[in-house]
Amino acid sequence: MSHKVRMRVAYEGTRYHGWQYQPHAATVEGELRRACAKFLNVAEAEVQLQGASRTDAGVHALGQTAHLIYDAPRSCWDVARALNALTPDDICVVRVEPASEDFHARHSARGKIYRYRLWRHRFANPLQVNHRWHVRHPLDLSAMAQAGRKLVGEHDFAAFRASDCQSATTVRHIQRVELEVAGPELIVWVEGSAFLKYMVRNIVGTLVMIGEGRAPVSRMDELLASGDRQRGGQTAPPGGLTLMTVHYPEHPWQADDLDLGCDPV
Amino acid sequence: MSHKVRMRVAYEGTRYHGWQYQPHAATVEGELRRACAKFLNVAEAEVQLQGASRTDAGVHALGQTAHLIYDAPRSCWDVARALNALTPDDICVVRVEPASEDFHARHSARGKIYRYRLWRHRFANPLQVNHRWHVRHPLDLSAMAQAGRKLVGEHDFAAFRASDCQSATTVRHIQRVELEVAGPELIVWVEGSAFLKYMVRNIVGTLVMIGEGRAPVSRMDELLASGDRQRGGQTAPPGGLTLMTVHYPEHPWQADDLDLGCDPV
Repeated sequence: MSHKVRMRVAYEGTRYHGWQYQPHAATVEGELRRACAKFLNVAEAEVQLQGASRTDAGVHALGQTAHLIYDAPRSCWDVARALNALTPDDICVVRVEPASEDFHARHSARGKIYRYRLWRHRFANPLQVNHRWHVRHPLDLSAMAQAGRKLVGEHDFAAFRASDCQSATTVRHIQRVELEVAGPELIVWVEGSAFLKYMVRNIVGTLVMIGEGRAPVSRMDELLASGDRQRGGQTAPPGGLTLMTVHYPEHPWQADDLDLGCDPV
Repeated sequence: MSHKVRMRVAYEGTRYHGWQYQPHAATVEGELRRACAKFLNVAEAEVQLQGASRTDAGVHALGQTAHLIYDAPRSCWDVARALNALTPDDICVVRVEPASEDFHARHSARGKIYRYRLWRHRFANPLQVNHRWHVRHPLDLSAMAQAGRKLVGEHDFAAFRASDCQSATTVRHIQRVELEVAGPELIVWVEGSAFLKYMVRNIVGTLVMIGEGRAPVSRMDELLASGDRQRGGQTAPPGGLTLMTVHYPEHPWQADDLDLGCDPV
């Protein structure tokens, strides 16, 4: 009899070439596949593991979600314990619970929340090199907030995708682009139904360009209308980005007891 | 004419073999010496740089202090900017100000504050692997606090020094050993006049041994009386430790304006 579980995965992305399995590079999925194969005593290629989001190289996650299908009789707790014992310490399976047959980590997802953190200071902060984008120039937060609000709603985000993004359509729905200030730290929260490749990082890069006064707030309208990636800001570095949550309104999590209990970094 | 400045230095110690210069290994002092040599246009061996504390490999600092003596006419601001431009991003000169002739980063120091952070959870926290000691077993905090208080005052800390510690005397004065709980995180604050090699990490290791119930609170008295390192706890891993402050009561800092402004990790 086959079992399906869903799991919530947290990781520090610095050492990895992203989530997605690659035969010759360290990836988060690759590490989990290897651990599953060992634990379930099957070949790696036979591991039925599916993640919700293909986070980029260097991007972190506190709320990546994946499902795993297997035949052996293993409890959720065994899965969590085994995978945490068999993966490096910068990957943690935070929670495991039974999933219904129709649950699919990728297809059942209805939205995602990303957090992007910036460090606004003359000097780089040595203790968070891989977790904040260091921006030296003063930022006009009100211009950034105004520009961010223009993205909310359904729009064509062609101007915000990577040149090699292979998505058939570029229309996406954004629920929220909000700024949060905490001393020299600035957090950009982005929530949306789905995202194109590099979309959040390109949004943040464009907000920073506007915040630094290198483009007016109206550039945002222009980008949405033209779809011209060249007129947008740089792709913000990956280390500032963390996948916080994947929404499954039709499949709520059952329990919170395996959660790490706090936001660690 | 020669100038003397004092600087406050923050660093993420993960990549370094400690503060102290070593010819064939990456050290924080080595990076700073190289940067000073370039900036002052002198040979590295001629750079007159002196740190307050020889932090171990993997130990972090927010408040390491050093002095630098040089002939060229350079402002404090130039020193800060140049050293931050010439060192890797995991080292930051947070503050520079003129030092009086009799100031010596090491000899003028009258005390230090260390912070040690533990992560109490079933699973390792992937985002702070190099910044917390992961302790899986429940800890008896009241026993730990009681044991910690026994260390306060003047004692012979022979049982808490590294086997290769070369200090002539092992008597030290501890002002404070305090626990602070923040969810699954536990912080041990240790303040003292001066420390032996590995002393803070050996204190923390012994507190954890007592907290896990592997030794009674009275073990602390026994260790202070016997000086027997073998009866103490393990040396706590370096990543949990951060040098927060070096006290110079006779040489107070003049200004705070270059401070990073918050505790980053």
